[in-house]
Amino acid sequence: MAHKFVNQIEPGEGIDDVYIVRDPILRSTTRGDLYIAMFLVDRTGQLNGRMWQATEAIYKSLPKPGFVHIQGRSELYQNNLQIIINNISIVDAGEVCIGDFLARTDKDTGQMFEEVKKIVGRIKNPHLKALAGEFLADTELMEKFCNTPGGVKLHHNYIGGLLEHTHNMLQVAVAILPLYPNVQADLVLTGIFLHDIGKTEELSYDMAFSYTDSGQLIGHVVKSLLMINQKAEVLRAKGTKIEQSVLDTLGHIILSHHGEYEFGSPKLPATAEAFMVYFIDDLDAKINQVTAAIDNELSDSNWTAWKNALQTKLYTKRIE
Amino acid sequence: MAHKFVNQIEPGEGIDDVYIVRDPILRSTTRGDLYIAMFLVDRTGQLNGRMWQATEAIYKSLPKPGFVHIQGRSELYQNNLQIIINNISIVDAGEVCIGDFLARTDKDTGQMFEEVKKIVGRIKNPHLKALAGEFLADTELMEKFCNTPGGVKLHHNYIGGLLEHTHNMLQVAVAILPLYPNVQADLVLTGIFLHDIGKTEELSYDMAFSYTDSGQLIGHVVKSLLMINQKAEVLRAKGTKIEQSVLDTLGHIILSHHGEYEFGSPKLPATAEAFMVYFIDDLDAKINQVTAAIDNELSDSNWTAWKNALQTKLYTKRIE
Amino acid sequence: MAHKFVNQIEPGEGIDDVYIVRDPILRSTTRGDLYIAMFLVDRTGQLNGRMWQATEAIYKSLPKPGFVHIQGRSELYQNNLQIIINNISIVDAGEVCIGDFLARTDKDTGQMFEEVKKIVGRIKNPHLKALAGEFLADTELMEKFCNTPGGVKLHHNYIGGLLEHTHNMLQVAVAILPLYPNVQADLVLTGIFLHDIGKTEELSYDMAFSYTDSGQLIGHVVKSLLMINQKAEVLRAKGTKIEQSVLDTLGHIILSHHGEYEFGSPKLPATAEAFMVYFIDDLDAKINQVTAAIDNELSDSNWTAWKNALQTKLYTKRIE
Amino acid sequence: MAHKFVNQIEPGEGIDDVYIVRDPILRSTTRGDLYIAMFLVDRTGQLNGRMWQATEAIYKSLPKPGFVHIQGRSELYQNNLQIIINNISIVDAGEVCIGDFLARTDKDTGQMFEEVKKIVGRIKNPHLKALAGEFLADTELMEKFCNTPGGVKLHHNYIGGLLEHTHNMLQVAVAILPLYPNVQADLVLTGIFLHDIGKTEELSYDMAFSYTDSGQLIGHVVKSLLMINQKAEVLRAKGTKIEQSVLDTLGHIILSHHGEYEFGSPKLPATAEAFMVYFIDDLDAKINQVTAAIDNELSDSNWTAWKNALQTKLYTKRIE
Amino acid sequence: MAHKFVNQIEPGEGIDDVYIVRDPILRSTTRGDLYIAMFLVDRTGQLNGRMWQATEAIYKSLPKPGFVHIQGRSELYQNNLQIIINNISIVDAGEVCIGDFLARTDKDTGQMFEEVKKIVGRIKNPHLKALAGEFLADTELMEKFCNTPGGVKLHHNYIGGLLEHTHNMLQVAVAILPLYPNVQADLVLTGIFLHDIGKTEELSYDMAFSYTDSGQLIGHVVKSLLMINQKAEVLRAKGTKIEQSVLDTLGHIILSHHGEYEFGSPKLPATAEAFMVYFIDDLDAKINQVTAAIDNELSDSNWTAWKNALQTKLYTKRIE
Amino acid sequence: MAHKFVNQIEPGEGIDDVYIVRDPILRSTTRGDLYIAMFLVDRTGQLNGRMWQATEAIYKSLPKPGFVHIQGRSELYQNNLQIIINNISIVDAGEVCIGDFLARTDKDTGQMFEEVKKIVGRIKNPHLKALAGEFLADTELMEKFCNTPGGVKLHHNYIGGLLEHTHNMLQVAVAILPLYPNVQADLVLTGIFLHDIGKTEELSYDMAFSYTDSGQLIGHVVKSLLMINQKAEVLRAKGTKIEQSVLDTLGHIILSHHGEYEFGSPKLPATAEAFMVYFIDDLDAKINQVTAAIDNELSDSNWTAWKNALQTKLYTKRIE
Repeated sequence: MAHKFVNQIEPGEGIDDVYIVRDPILRSTTRGDLYIAMFLVDRTGQLNGRMWQATEAIYKSLPKPGFVHIQGRSELYQNNLQIIINNISIVDAGEVCIGDFLARTDKDTGQMFEEVKKIVGRIKNPHLKALAGEFLADTELMEKFCNTPGGVKLHHNYIGGLLEHTHNMLQVAVAILPLYPNVQADLVLTGIFLHDIGKTEELSYDMAFSYTDSGQLIGHVVKSLLMINQKAEVLRAKGTKIEQSVLDTLGHIILSHHGEYEFGSPKLPATAEAFMVYFIDDLDAKINQVTAAIDNELSDSNWTAWKNALQTKLYTKRIE
Repeated sequence: MAHKFVNQIEPGEGIDDVYIVRDPILRSTTRGDLYIAMFLVDRTGQLNGRMWQATEAIYKSLPKPGFVHIQGRSELYQNNLQIIINNISIVDAGEVCIGDFLARTDKDTGQMFEEVKKIVGRIKNPHLKALAGEFLADTELMEKFCNTPGGVKLHHNYIGGLLEHTHNMLQVAVAILPLYPNVQADLVLTGIFLHDIGKTEELSYDMAFSYTDSGQLIGHVVKSLLMINQKAEVLRAKGTKIEQSVLDTLGHIILSHHGEYEFGSPKLPATAEAFMVYFIDDLDAKINQVTAAIDNELSDSNWTAWKNALQTKLYTKRIE
Repeated sequence: MAHKFVNQIEPGEGIDDVYIVRDPILRSTTRGDLYIAMFLVDRTGQLNGRMWQATEAIYKSLPKPGFVHIQGRSELYQNNLQIIINNISIVDAGEVCIGDFLARTDKDTGQMFEEVKKIVGRIKNPHLKALAGEFLADTELMEKFCNTPGGVKLHHNYIGGLLEHTHNMLQVAVAILPLYPNVQADLVLTGIFLHDIGKTEELSYDMAFSYTDSGQLIGHVVKSLLMINQKAEVLRAKGTKIEQSVLDTLGHIILSHHGEYEFGSPKLPATAEAFMVYFIDDLDAKINQVTAAIDNELSDSNWTAWKNALQTKLYTKRIE
Repeated sequence: MAHKFVNQIEPGEGIDDVYIVRDPILRSTTRGDLYIAMFLVDRTGQLNGRMWQATEAIYKSLPKPGFVHIQGRSELYQNNLQIIINNISIVDAGEVCIGDFLARTDKDTGQMFEEVKKIVGRIKNPHLKALAGEFLADTELMEKFCNTPGGVKLHHNYIGGLLEHTHNMLQVAVAILPLYPNVQADLVLTGIFLHDIGKTEELSYDMAFSYTDSGQLIGHVVKSLLMINQKAEVLRAKGTKIEQSVLDTLGHIILSHHGEYEFGSPKLPATAEAFMVYFIDDLDAKINQVTAAIDNELSDSNWTAWKNALQTKLYTKRIE
Repeated sequence: MAHKFVNQIEPGEGIDDVYIVRDPILRSTTRGDLYIAMFLVDRTGQLNGRMWQATEAIYKSLPKPGFVHIQGRSELYQNNLQIIINNISIVDAGEVCIGDFLARTDKDTGQMFEEVKKIVGRIKNPHLKALAGEFLADTELMEKFCNTPGGVKLHHNYIGGLLEHTHNMLQVAVAILPLYPNVQADLVLTGIFLHDIGKTEELSYDMAFSYTDSGQLIGHVVKSLLMINQKAEVLRAKGTKIEQSVLDTLGHIILSHHGEYEFGSPKLPATAEAFMVYFIDDLDAKINQVTAAIDNELSDSNWTAWKNALQTKLYTKRIE
Repeated sequence: MAHKFVNQIEPGEGIDDVYIVRDPILRSTTRGDLYIAMFLVDRTGQLNGRMWQATEAIYKSLPKPGFVHIQGRSELYQNNLQIIINNISIVDAGEVCIGDFLARTDKDTGQMFEEVKKIVGRIKNPHLKALAGEFLADTELMEKFCNTPGGVKLHHNYIGGLLEHTHNMLQVAVAILPLYPNVQADLVLTGIFLHDIGKTEELSYDMAFSYTDSGQLIGHVVKSLLMINQKAEVLRAKGTKIEQSVLDTLGHIILSHHGEYEFGSPKLPATAEAFMVYFIDDLDAKINQVTAAIDNELSDSNWTAWKNALQTKLYTKRIE
């Protein structure tokens, strides 16, 4: 049975479906009866939920947050829709269709990953080839790579976003590298493939997009570099030595790919390859962010709301 | 007869060639005799010149700066090479091979301009097509467009640099536009073609690269916009009305293509097309600047000197 | 009959007057009945409106936003005043006293414009005189010039504000120019007269102060320059050539009059005249903004609320 | 006998005049003979001096820096003019015409001071009147006030510059205050009169313009405030109590008159009067700085050299 | 009887206690009856209060803000607790236990002040010793010094916070000065003792922490310097002259102790002692701010909310 | 035989000693004879060297740069001392007393390292104890740790500077940690011990202080983190697992210890321990930098030259 999305519920409907419960609070009415207030959430939004005949035991059993099965009814209260809950029970994350709760790329991740492998397969420098191969061979990591979002808020913020962003950047690189023959293609391609690989450890996305503790303390920029060094160490243990100068030049691309100190890059780009990865990253992220903001704009106006990260409103009207 | 370049002169040679004279000064020796000190310049550098039997009439006749024919001899003085001048006469700029004095793109400008026309020819939107066509039909302006440098100092700073930069940007756009189907290709292509057209009025390059008064007071960003509005006015007078909203959307790309207020953009990018032109411009300029700096580095070190505009040294060593 | 202002309505009054309707929404009650929620607005504020017996046809007929005639009654609901609407009908903007809806300068615009003309009449330089004259002769534009607000939010944000601001700046200039004999008075006076003329195209003020699309894409700084160049072109067509260097020097004043890149000036002031226009503009705007904020402060405190644009609170207490 | 200015000396002249000696060094030639190298300075520039038959006693007797009487001869050495010194003797500063060594305002300081007193005499508020009067009555301080330069480098950097700058600002205020009736004139006039009074303690100008230790540690902004509080204390001891709130409002004008934190103002303007003093100060300083730079430009170009404090070159050409 | 704190009140309790009333407003119900809405506040939070049978006389008698005795009852209204007031009467601040309303250091102020005196007693330089002694002898000021908060919001924002902060900084200085023998200990100790003494005049803390007018106009940085100069003047009048250079060097420490212009320091540190006071101040303030934020965090998350002043969230989890 | 320092050589001395040769150039005189110009350097400065009877073979044999034995004579040429070289031969770095060429801490490195070990020995947390122990046990690395300079230019820029700086910071931490009981001492001590350990790989100091390629591409901040992760990996291989959360919390201290993005920290401090390490680092570095600049000032003035990194001059006069 299809999930009933939060933004499709009308007043007066019976509800019998799974939602994420968030921020439940136990309160007492003026008469002293206990009730639980909470939010019910899926990927289309959230509603207030009220369970009037509640006990402390029920409250304590609730995940904070987590998946729950709700039985009850929708009603309008002071012009806002809310759900009156008769029954609530915990649901195992494994039984849930995660796509109902987290946005997902609308492209084919399998096909995108095949194309990534094909482009990475062009790398000829033996050190970079070995390194990229070691990553491709780590199937557990590659599965994460295909599912991690591109970010929590700004761009490619959906399941598969990291892959989609990396895939698109590789395509841009393949298209323009012939125009810049002095730029070392192998470094650019490896740099793009691995530039955000640390996001697989920085971001968590089981119920919502958020940062891991480790991700917030260290950041994906440095985490990507650590992962590259670990793979190089593994290769060394197997007898394949990655030249230190190659590792440093690649590492420099990773560390400098945000382009400015204030965006968390501890080094500024100092090679043509680092500049190219930085620009392709910024271009792909900004175009994704801008076109998504324009697509999602609902108002009739020719302008979106103010976008703080861009310090402007966006103009939504197309020519002709 | 081939020009004898300044950086090829050895001590003790006879000199009989054309150079640019700069900053001539009339002085008297301790004994009271008059002499003229000056710099002799071509595109490879400059040397001190001394004319010992000078008169105030000769001094007054000299252009400041300008082309002169020199007869004399080179010598070492305190370990520096200088030219002792016996004869000096003014030369008309028309008789001079300007390429000896100003750096020039090493690409074929005719072929590049053909390719620019071909790419611009793809534009389908009738307003933008008419506008671009009006520029292409202005042969005097197009000749300037093919010769103007891309800048005075930072990137593409040679004759033909504006064309080379515009041509390269158009090629990048053609390569990546298919990857971003929401981005309006006609706006991007017209925006790139005209983004720096104001440099034809901002920069002068008869003997050296410098700014015109008008260029320095108004700047090429706004000058480009003025030129677009003038061409639209000409078209209107001929009966072809360019839709105001098309003109404004294109104008916005021009005004915002430096991307940040502090780089002289009076508006920040507010459309996907404006972001794309800004990024392609920055990418092409920076890669040109970085690869030129690396190519021109003479020292054996793995690093160039500090580059102030980039806030870093550049790493010159290639992998493998 | 005098308009009943929103901030004068008491609970329990009958309402029969014109207001601006904004953001109407069609909703259904728990019982399934349709009603329309909306804001009712004039220049003193806004109230919630509710029309309980509504139909989709009524909803669709409403302007979004626009003028409407309301019949109904005020009531307190949860301590907030709201209007219960029995009847609603569209009103033509032409029948409305716009002054009830938009704030207006309390100075005499006719007299101010006469004084502007008198001061501009002092200009002696023939190029600048011709240019200013061409603007003064454009009666349609001059009518806009007398009505446009000085801005949407920060200063002189009322009908006639642009004229009041320009008029005040001209008076300041006339008062201090004798103290700075090296400064070219004609340039300063023309620069002030035209420095914000682009706001006539940047701002719309039919029902509320807002930006036009064209204004937001191009900005009044560059629009002012474009208008000056258009008038110069018109003059040229009539046989009066404005010297290019005069046009550039005046244009430079326009482009640099915000004084800093981050305030949208693509050029920094590079002449004494540009500095003077920038300072007089900033002085008049800031004094207007500060004294208005102090006048409008209602609390008993000696300080206004935090003013973000000034990065401070303002001290409201006068000495003695 | 008129002073022979450094920029008027020709090769081969006999020299018998007073200069400032700076940075003398005792050295020995290859043969072991001692000589003294030094700079000889007046307000038009400096030259190298060499005294070949020198002793350690002569060296030790020299002021570092100070006034000396020089007898000797000018000569050209490697195309640079230098002075060969036969005799050198110390000169008392009292016997020197200081105007030969320090630039001085070309306006009449007596007349300017009379006008300052007249304008300050308009102040009606009894607290501010008493305070200003106490300063005017301090003849020693007022003499310093009439001689102190306006600054070391940027603007009004000549003897009498502080008075000239204050005088001009008062005239501007008198001219524009009638246009801003809400602004409290007495606060503006007192604020201008005393805004830089601390420069009398911050700057020293006996031989060259420089900072006192105290001036460099505390700064004229805070020093001005300290001096106002000291005068208020003196008045209090005489029985005239200056209202604390008047003192704080005036003090706030002083502390905020640089307008921005980064220019050393510990407070941002928070009253209309503080804004007005800040703007008049900035306007008068910048116009002085710009017109002086344009006047002093010697080259034939239409542009001065780059002015770092203004982040631009200045355009020197006048219209018509 | 112990004060009933706002955060301990349950629904349905009788209330008979003292609170601060804030922002009272007189309103009328739909039936036309008058009532007063207000906030009731103590140091643990605030609640809505409603007095239904109100008169304009009662409203006018209320302090805005001030202490009042409330008799009434708590109730839940739309899930929020509010107090229904039957009786309200003004209470004299002298009868109130101020500690119920303002947070207070949990350290012993008497003991801390003794230790401050002991450490200050180590100062040997006679000028600084005399100056510090003059402050210690001002018992009225010292009592304020022991009670003033360290700030309104960021750190040590409780009664006694200034003393606690100064005391802690002195202890840090005593601990590390032996490690830096070149740093002049007497200057550091005097500098720390007096660095924030102006806060006694800048902050008011009778009912809540706020700024005085004088404090907001002048700021504690400059106020501290004024107070030091006043004490030096008092000493001079008694025959003890404080060397000007000592006063300036100490004054410089005070003026520069915020370390950067944008934090309100009109001078940047220019002595080792000024750097040391700046660093110890910043360290003690930030550690206090960070540990307080972590202690006060109530959520189960490993991270606090975003802290704007620190531009980060804080990680609350301890190791092991 | 003691080294003859460059700043002790007088004109006319015989020279027979070891220096570093830098930037040798082969040139020919006017007569066509070859000679070599070069700089001769030790830790006290540099002089010009000229070898007149030179051959291309000699030129090619010279290190660029490297140690050479020079035989020749000093002479004055145009008032500058230079060395006329008769004989030049390469010297092995192993035979050289490196202290003659590189500045060195004047503290006892052996004793400082013992104290570092003692303080690190206090760490009780088993994860941090194991990690620190693994570093201490790496004798090759610890020897580098004792010799590496603290930096190339700003502070502790001498052999042993890294150890001296780390040692001093640990002493400061031990002195103040008891005053901040909430701060986790083990994290602070481990964080300080390892905060700059990456400088052992970032800096080279065989002949002069400079950056390695790897150091310049990656930077010591991230290098320190990589080294910590490598040691943790080594421990894991030996069966000692370092808790990931401990590793991340320590890593965060390393990454954030520059305190601001613009100083190359990719993360801002988010724990009390990170703030403490940042402040102790900054305090020790700045006090070292300031006292060194004051000690090295040679002029009689009370102020040093302008210090760009501090944005001020420094006041050199001590009180009393």
